[in-house]
Amino acid sequence: MNVPNGLFVKMVIDAWNKELGATNKLLDKLTDEQLMQEVSPSRNRGIYLLGHLTAEHDQMMPLLRFQEATHPELVPIFLDAPDKAIATLPSLQQLRAYWMAVNDTLMGHIARLPADEWFTRHANITEADFPNEPHRNRLNVVLSRTTHLSNHRGQLTLLTNK
Amino acid sequence: MNVPNGLFVKMVIDAWNKELGATNKLLDKLTDEQLMQEVSPSRNRGIYLLGHLTAEHDQMMPLLRFQEATHPELVPIFLDAPDKAIATLPSLQQLRAYWMAVNDTLMGHIARLPADEWFTRHANITEADFPNEPHRNRLNVVLSRTTHLSNHRGQLTLLTNK
Repeated sequence: MNVPNGLFVKMVIDAWNKELGATNKLLDKLTDEQLMQEVSPSRNRGIYLLGHLTAEHDQMMPLLRFQEATHPELVPIFLDAPDKAIATLPSLQQLRAYWMAVNDTLMGHIARLPADEWFTRHANITEADFPNEPHRNRLNVVLSRTTHLSNHRGQLTLLTNK
Repeated sequence: MNVPNGLFVKMVIDAWNKELGATNKLLDKLTDEQLMQEVSPSRNRGIYLLGHLTAEHDQMMPLLRFQEATHPELVPIFLDAPDKAIATLPSLQQLRAYWMAVNDTLMGHIARLPADEWFTRHANITEADFPNEPHRNRLNVVLSRTTHLSNHRGQLTLLTNK
């Protein structure tokens, strides 16, 4: 039995879309005031997690060899630094807009990539090394970022009714 | 280009193992006292999440058509009821042991299943319907439970330093 590549791509992209859809639904429900709260005492605030996820998804674009990141200025704030280390963050209005734009741009690329292309290397592995580690392909980036998103969505959920 | 089925399977099982390994590392670090705390005020306690994940993974066994669940008594407590609805829970000592045993049994089945078999139906879809929805296969169960585990691991992480 030979499973068509497209089926596997569908399984992973469906999981990504499901997780992203659930996160968007949650973010729609959360007020700006709620997003300024910590998910648990002394832990990350919602605003930090939103910026963190936006920066991480933005970085998927070069990693997937689609295009350059659109908001590199988020990296030092939301990937390199922990929450509360940097006094002035972008506003929630800005971050909500970046979040939607980054995911839309990413989804445009994802939807256009032919099934076979998903099994080519991501940007963090060289062409020379890839034949020995064919699992380090572009689809695996989406898979790992889906669990990353789910991890933080579980935390953001705790902000409802706060 | 035809991607071998075994490569897809490896990608998903690797993601499962990575998530499970991170959860086990976290559970080793968390004391029983920490697991009795709520992950955030008025939210689920660690003990409930541990029972919930154990019950969910146990239910993967029939869903994957491996064998019957080994702890069906956990379903009413940790899947049907929310936290704090049931006064007496199994002890943390018991739950930690169940958690390890369930995942070990499950992993034994997972490791033995031939690659092609992963693309056959799971138990919640009929043989008649499966040809029209081939993504509802056994591998997809592992994929969806990986994001489920990640979601709750993100919450359990909040118990460290409590």
